[in-house]
Amino acid sequence: MAPTPSERLRELGLTLPPPPKPVGAYSPVVVDGHQAWVSGQVVLKDGVAVSAGLVGRDVTVEAAKAVARSAALQALSALSASLGSIDRIQRVVRVAVYIATSEGFARHAEVGNGATELLIELFGDLGRPARVSVGVASLPLNAPVELELLVATG
Amino acid sequence: MAPTPSERLRELGLTLPPPPKPVGAYSPVVVDGHQAWVSGQVVLKDGVAVSAGLVGRDVTVEAAKAVARSAALQALSALSASLGSIDRIQRVVRVAVYIATSEGFARHAEVGNGATELLIELFGDLGRPARVSVGVASLPLNAPVELELLVATG
Amino acid sequence: MAPTPSERLRELGLTLPPPPKPVGAYSPVVVDGHQAWVSGQVVLKDGVAVSAGLVGRDVTVEAAKAVARSAALQALSALSASLGSIDRIQRVVRVAVYIATSEGFARHAEVGNGATELLIELFGDLGRPARVSVGVASLPLNAPVELELLVATG
Repeated sequence: MAPTPSERLRELGLTLPPPPKPVGAYSPVVVDGHQAWVSGQVVLKDGVAVSAGLVGRDVTVEAAKAVARSAALQALSALSASLGSIDRIQRVVRVAVYIATSEGFARHAEVGNGATELLIELFGDLGRPARVSVGVASLPLNAPVELELLVATG
Repeated sequence: MAPTPSERLRELGLTLPPPPKPVGAYSPVVVDGHQAWVSGQVVLKDGVAVSAGLVGRDVTVEAAKAVARSAALQALSALSASLGSIDRIQRVVRVAVYIATSEGFARHAEVGNGATELLIELFGDLGRPARVSVGVASLPLNAPVELELLVATG
Repeated sequence: MAPTPSERLRELGLTLPPPPKPVGAYSPVVVDGHQAWVSGQVVLKDGVAVSAGLVGRDVTVEAAKAVARSAALQALSALSASLGSIDRIQRVVRVAVYIATSEGFARHAEVGNGATELLIELFGDLGRPARVSVGVASLPLNAPVELELLVATG
């Protein structure tokens, strides 16, 4: 038997962070039918964005990739709080990766991989989503990366 | 009995604006199964964007928040025209808030609240969506805010 | 009988490009229930973005519109590879058009029309999607346009 995603998480030595608290008038997760929509995740420490600034100027691609991975873990924490367990996720459907950059930045795929490689490690091929990665002008609290997730549940 | 969303709208002294006319090759709303997708809403007056420019430089956060609220009303008008009534909306699933900014802007949540606080006033907890807010380089017609909505219908 | 979308494609003298290969840890298309989500499409030639740069500064609106049209064809190619045929597409539900621009660009609708006019040519009114068009700071590989598609299948 293949390990469950939560077993796989433990095998990788990872733990979910505390579920994110909304910093505005929205819900961390909305379940609609078999789909669960996760709000945009930025990674904070003590209320301040981790690796704040523009990727490619203030923040290295490697650091941004690590933030994207943390944002994916945080999205899973939000889903776990809403669904009861990440083992109820049957398919990662779509991931949107918003990266704060100035013009001319071109390495979006490497940053996005930080999030989606983790999802594939945990869920196998069912964790391989459709993905869109774009470079934006600014993100909430000067975060370098914001991650949005859509999953199918069982 | 709780008031319906359209009754609640009247209680708040609000009226829906005329439904937006598409300014391109797209549909204001597409219904797919129980979901209704609303095209990106920018707020115009006499064909010109209200509070045009970059938020945080040309446009205050307060003015942008008001535009976001107007954009939410306009999205509801598009849904009312497509569905027959906003009372057919059972759940606001996802709101995307695109805000025109230069780098360093960090107050996206306040702008987004302009839209989602209105939705919560009208639909209660079922109006509390998953949300993503990002700062973009430019928006159609130099609008300061563009709003995208996904709802579940009954 | 109305021609099928693939017959219409031939009538227009168009052929689908080879299906795009993912350049990262994601899937070109994810099917979830009756919906198919297509990953963000950028148009490359020999691994380099066609018409690279910022639209309105380095790239004309006309050239960007042509890239948007090519990106739509490429998205259809990804769907054809995943579904077996574009004739299984019953409705184009949502198109997101991300355009690399500097501040002050305002002609997003014209660029987006490059994609959605083609979809309407092929699928008629069922090809007329909900649409969101935004101007972003940068796109993967300095592409001028990135296109995301959601369709309903039969």
